[in-house]
Amino acid sequence: MDFAFDARTEDLRGQLLEFMDSHVYPAEAVFHEQLAARTDPWSPPPVVGELKAEARNRGLWNFFLPGDHGAGLTNLQYAPLAEITGRSPHLAPAAVNCAAPDTGNMEVLTMFGSEQQKKQWLEPLLAGEIRSAFAMTEPDVASSDARNIATSIRREGDEYVINGRKWYITGAMNPNCQIFIVMGKTDPDAPAHKQQSMILVPRDTPGLTVVRGMQVFGYTDGDHGGHAEVLFEDVRVPAENLIADEGSGFAVAQARLGPGRIHHCMRAIGMAERALEAMCRRTLSRETFGRPIADSGVVQDWIAEARVRIEQQRLLVLKTAWLMDTVGNQGAHTEIQAIKISTPLAVEWILDKAIQAHGAGGVSQDFPLAEIWAGVRTLRLADGPDEVHKRSLARRELKKYRTEAGK
Amino acid sequence: MDFAFDARTEDLRGQLLEFMDSHVYPAEAVFHEQLAARTDPWSPPPVVGELKAEARNRGLWNFFLPGDHGAGLTNLQYAPLAEITGRSPHLAPAAVNCAAPDTGNMEVLTMFGSEQQKKQWLEPLLAGEIRSAFAMTEPDVASSDARNIATSIRREGDEYVINGRKWYITGAMNPNCQIFIVMGKTDPDAPAHKQQSMILVPRDTPGLTVVRGMQVFGYTDGDHGGHAEVLFEDVRVPAENLIADEGSGFAVAQARLGPGRIHHCMRAIGMAERALEAMCRRTLSRETFGRPIADSGVVQDWIAEARVRIEQQRLLVLKTAWLMDTVGNQGAHTEIQAIKISTPLAVEWILDKAIQAHGAGGVSQDFPLAEIWAGVRTLRLADGPDEVHKRSLARRELKKYRTEAGK
Amino acid sequence: MDFAFDARTEDLRGQLLEFMDSHVYPAEAVFHEQLAARTDPWSPPPVVGELKAEARNRGLWNFFLPGDHGAGLTNLQYAPLAEITGRSPHLAPAAVNCAAPDTGNMEVLTMFGSEQQKKQWLEPLLAGEIRSAFAMTEPDVASSDARNIATSIRREGDEYVINGRKWYITGAMNPNCQIFIVMGKTDPDAPAHKQQSMILVPRDTPGLTVVRGMQVFGYTDGDHGGHAEVLFEDVRVPAENLIADEGSGFAVAQARLGPGRIHHCMRAIGMAERALEAMCRRTLSRETFGRPIADSGVVQDWIAEARVRIEQQRLLVLKTAWLMDTVGNQGAHTEIQAIKISTPLAVEWILDKAIQAHGAGGVSQDFPLAEIWAGVRTLRLADGPDEVHKRSLARRELKKYRTEAGK
Amino acid sequence: MDFAFDARTEDLRGQLLEFMDSHVYPAEAVFHEQLAARTDPWSPPPVVGELKAEARNRGLWNFFLPGDHGAGLTNLQYAPLAEITGRSPHLAPAAVNCAAPDTGNMEVLTMFGSEQQKKQWLEPLLAGEIRSAFAMTEPDVASSDARNIATSIRREGDEYVINGRKWYITGAMNPNCQIFIVMGKTDPDAPAHKQQSMILVPRDTPGLTVVRGMQVFGYTDGDHGGHAEVLFEDVRVPAENLIADEGSGFAVAQARLGPGRIHHCMRAIGMAERALEAMCRRTLSRETFGRPIADSGVVQDWIAEARVRIEQQRLLVLKTAWLMDTVGNQGAHTEIQAIKISTPLAVEWILDKAIQAHGAGGVSQDFPLAEIWAGVRTLRLADGPDEVHKRSLARRELKKYRTEAGK
Repeated sequence: MDFAFDARTEDLRGQLLEFMDSHVYPAEAVFHEQLAARTDPWSPPPVVGELKAEARNRGLWNFFLPGDHGAGLTNLQYAPLAEITGRSPHLAPAAVNCAAPDTGNMEVLTMFGSEQQKKQWLEPLLAGEIRSAFAMTEPDVASSDARNIATSIRREGDEYVINGRKWYITGAMNPNCQIFIVMGKTDPDAPAHKQQSMILVPRDTPGLTVVRGMQVFGYTDGDHGGHAEVLFEDVRVPAENLIADEGSGFAVAQARLGPGRIHHCMRAIGMAERALEAMCRRTLSRETFGRPIADSGVVQDWIAEARVRIEQQRLLVLKTAWLMDTVGNQGAHTEIQAIKISTPLAVEWILDKAIQAHGAGGVSQDFPLAEIWAGVRTLRLADGPDEVHKRSLARRELKKYRTEAGK
Repeated sequence: MDFAFDARTEDLRGQLLEFMDSHVYPAEAVFHEQLAARTDPWSPPPVVGELKAEARNRGLWNFFLPGDHGAGLTNLQYAPLAEITGRSPHLAPAAVNCAAPDTGNMEVLTMFGSEQQKKQWLEPLLAGEIRSAFAMTEPDVASSDARNIATSIRREGDEYVINGRKWYITGAMNPNCQIFIVMGKTDPDAPAHKQQSMILVPRDTPGLTVVRGMQVFGYTDGDHGGHAEVLFEDVRVPAENLIADEGSGFAVAQARLGPGRIHHCMRAIGMAERALEAMCRRTLSRETFGRPIADSGVVQDWIAEARVRIEQQRLLVLKTAWLMDTVGNQGAHTEIQAIKISTPLAVEWILDKAIQAHGAGGVSQDFPLAEIWAGVRTLRLADGPDEVHKRSLARRELKKYRTEAGK
Repeated sequence: MDFAFDARTEDLRGQLLEFMDSHVYPAEAVFHEQLAARTDPWSPPPVVGELKAEARNRGLWNFFLPGDHGAGLTNLQYAPLAEITGRSPHLAPAAVNCAAPDTGNMEVLTMFGSEQQKKQWLEPLLAGEIRSAFAMTEPDVASSDARNIATSIRREGDEYVINGRKWYITGAMNPNCQIFIVMGKTDPDAPAHKQQSMILVPRDTPGLTVVRGMQVFGYTDGDHGGHAEVLFEDVRVPAENLIADEGSGFAVAQARLGPGRIHHCMRAIGMAERALEAMCRRTLSRETFGRPIADSGVVQDWIAEARVRIEQQRLLVLKTAWLMDTVGNQGAHTEIQAIKISTPLAVEWILDKAIQAHGAGGVSQDFPLAEIWAGVRTLRLADGPDEVHKRSLARRELKKYRTEAGK
Repeated sequence: MDFAFDARTEDLRGQLLEFMDSHVYPAEAVFHEQLAARTDPWSPPPVVGELKAEARNRGLWNFFLPGDHGAGLTNLQYAPLAEITGRSPHLAPAAVNCAAPDTGNMEVLTMFGSEQQKKQWLEPLLAGEIRSAFAMTEPDVASSDARNIATSIRREGDEYVINGRKWYITGAMNPNCQIFIVMGKTDPDAPAHKQQSMILVPRDTPGLTVVRGMQVFGYTDGDHGGHAEVLFEDVRVPAENLIADEGSGFAVAQARLGPGRIHHCMRAIGMAERALEAMCRRTLSRETFGRPIADSGVVQDWIAEARVRIEQQRLLVLKTAWLMDTVGNQGAHTEIQAIKISTPLAVEWILDKAIQAHGAGGVSQDFPLAEIWAGVRTLRLADGPDEVHKRSLARRELKKYRTEAGK
């Protein structure tokens, strides 16, 4: 057992931290100016492209992707880098081409894509030239039970015909989001986990309508493509757009989720670190009743709790990454659920306290805390509400004792 | 001891509930359509004016104001009506001319205004013809310690000259917000609680600049005038615009806060009732794993907790109202702080669970939950963060034993 | 709506508070000395008898019992008196003959007892001459589902024959506990709520064995008769010992529970008040790092939270009492469950903080906090765990919307 | 970074788990029978001695002690073994001679003892022949501020004279507890951290009176020597009984605390594992309303939360152990405080839920849960209340930013 990062990780951490200091943090103010000045509410500010060019130039690129196509890191090596990018969540992940949902989509194409699919879509994604979306959640059903998904993907000759309505399709408002991976049912009569398939749908396919941007606690997230409601009406794509085989959608989705949770949770820990830093700075710099707010016993209690919770969450996520590397996603199932359940909640708590310590500024657009809070809050819902995952985790725990109990 | 509402309250409750059913709830969809269609992001939708006309016609008007100018209700009689308006928080309070910050401002003018001030500003406010703002919070200091307020109100001959910067001035983005009550220091060298004064500043006074709308978790609250940053640069008003005497600002603010908290908290309870109702409806109507979500033990636990917390909060607020009616704001000090501390937190918890039960819809613009949540969250900060009030309450509790302890 | 106590309540509160000051608090030290000195670990210390004599003499007696047999108070009138007795929970309730489980048993006998049963058992109980027990909980089944109760009460000629094992039968270790009300099944084949009956079993009946005293977190509660495991082996009693009719056990138990919860919860609030008082006194009198512990922001936060929670709980319990008086136990069902769920938990939290503020002394026998904590903790389990009651409350809440949802 | 145990740890874990299965768990029933049957309430049951003999025979002995005197394990190697012993907390730690407070005392003697002190006291302790006590906490002051300690250790010629009162001196009621390490002030006028010294006081020294056993929530902990109040009245011991130098008491105490926290926390995690196991087993084996309690959504939520919290705590404690091994106690200061703050609270929560799931049995002497709960609860107070440690941790966190804030 060893809690030190390996040499490659330390090296990359050093490079990335330097890049954050020299380029990312200074770009934040520019980013907000460009956001305020733009006319199209869905276009990414130019500074993002400049950061991408610089990062790629430095070789800080595609950390998330194991194997030859990406940086070739293990989950355990990538995790601390993801944490660092989480400190500037609207800039850093995109800058190093490690932003969701592209990361998951690239993983899917790497693992399950045909040569043609890789050439057409994976390559420009790896190069950071286009963006992509993942269309799973539907407004009309509880998507936490994947069997509820109602979008149909029907084979007709050499084509598939897609009909359905999706929402909260992250990134899809971005005009540069050129490809959608769509989840739907190819065979509603198959066994529960064999009904779904995934299919590639280019943005300009007739019948695909990006209806509107969905909000998250008032935020449009327009800086990174928002979250679209998307309507599919008799959308036709060639049969070769199907990813892997018919009926494999559930399995592909599972393969996609494990690393995604590691990434989300590590970035969230970076956000928590930044929030804690902001809380310390703010409370040291303001006074009430003649003393810095940081002298308040209650504020100190928050700071201590925040530090402890961050350490716990980081270790749990790192161990999960290590398990995925050593025994695979399946073997790390309990831990993947554990971080899904616990990290967003812990980070949300820290952000709430940092907001409270900032007074009215905390809920405003002048500090990043409220917007980050909203993003983290939705993680308790994304990929199914925490409660569904807790139930599943508990059943696995109970299983150990079921035989002896005869139940 | 008697927990039943009196006859007048029951009568008004009946009338108000009928008005909600027949006019307010049906207007909600119209309201959102008008919001989406408007070109000025700060103009109130026309349907609000229509509701006001209807409400005034029915005599459902100015419930909040005791005495001859208003409906003449006690706090205890008004409280359950405020709760009902909280069920549609963007429409109902405005419809019956009981919306903050006008209510507090009308109270101030009623209690402390000169005849001239009443004629010029109170009358059109009572008639619902204009809106108003209350400018206290400042961006550059921790306003929870009122002594930090830095805006200066300097006497020069027959005028006062005002310099300072305020933010989160609710309602001030509304073009129809015609009058500001501004808090500032007339004498920085006076004893701590005698430094501040309040003064009336008409919107069109030279030197007053409404800089921008502040956000609350991404919401602009543009439907009811937003929350402005306001700059005062050598703003000159006649000396008779001062409210009451020089140095009375702190006392006037205290008088304003008591009823304000009752109103905020009772409306928040109405919001909680609506959230609980929405949670029940949603979880009964959606299925996962073959059963309605409402069958989930965890969801039922939320529902039970929500019901219990609502009952507790309502009783505590009602008792506080009764105390204010019987022993005055001063005698109800502990209870006023108690509801400030506990009601928003309890209601926030209920809203969080209702959001979670709605899945992605919960954080979206398609349901009112996320926006209401954001409003309630800020109550934990408004008028000073909860932590400051807890400290004050604790010190009063400890005081009982200090003499015997010789401390 | 009126939050003031009526004249009779105020008068009795004054008398009771005077009695607490002059007799009960001074008796506490004597009580502990007598407990330490006694040889029989289950005999009540003599000082209890002395207090009873004094209280009866003063007319402070049988407050709990409405009607002619008792003090004739409403639930709302008794509740604040019960709170006061909770401040010295091991002495005051017994002193005024308002201690569980006698109170519930006297209510049962008053409402459902035959003339003969009243004469034989109710009269000496009302006079405080004997004690009694209520035997419902069983070790071998989850008693929270009353249908699980397995003890059989079988009719044989003019007798009933009782077989079964009970535990946590409060008071039964006291040699002066002379009568047991036993719950069991007279007809296992009847509909679920018609299977049980209650029957009177004198302590000295052959076949009844008091096996041992059960502990509560290490406490034997030997000062008030402990909590016995009791074995019934072919115990025979005359048929006239049955309370009310065969099959009425469930209904009688329900009638017994409502007032019982009011009493438990109000006493618990008295315990919380005492704990808060102790927390204030202790933290004012001890110093760390050069200042009284009471100056600590965290401790002040606890004190404020404690005060707020006490006020909330008291109001909820009082309203429940009022509802029981005005619309009956059935109409107060939701509120009775609400206090069962929320009061012990809130009071436990306050006790925990008071313990923490006392350091090692808090968990010791030198302060009453730890022992009171243990008693309050068990209220979360007694009469069925909170979780069962929450589920029931939630289902009633959901019922309002079921028809419209078609579920 | 590597989350797997090393080979030696795995080997010892295997041996220890086998010993638990073959000897410790089977001894638990015997232990409770012997406890019930003994006449001296402070004598350890004979089965403990038998287990010790067997463990020593197997080489499962003195795991806690690094270096030649003990098993020579690192903290990281010992931690998972301590966890295993925590599963049977009243038997296993003592069986392998790793029970507090002997462990800390042996560490002190190993690190700071003179040759004579080692020979006389360390050797029999290492051999498990005698027990020892550590006398620091005092009833009359808040010991969380070490400067409050009032016991005086005054030099007189070749002797030291000790006067003072201690309480909660764990193990001291055991007649076989032959040596006390006493903390007191040798120089009240020295700088704050140089006033205290530690000194060895044999049990039979005149003037030393073991006054009584202090309780912990009703438990005497008489199976392992209880927690004594001890009075020192002009107790004289030779000057060579002083440990290390005058004024070193604070430094020695700090050196003692780090490993002690690791041990306490890892054992607590073992207790949590056992509680979770018991919760699963119990809820699978009991039914309410026709289904196993384990099917309840709320119980499943507890089980999932328990699993997640255990994983988090274990990782945090293991990392702390690793830090102590690699950068020393000083470098691990934040983490040592972090586990002190978070582990007992998390484990207490799990025990509370396990108790709740057991119904009345949970608070009884028939299951180990309530007694374990009481022990874990006191960890929130032992070595200073959590709140003091949180404050200290927060100040270290704030220190990073103080210079820039100019505070």
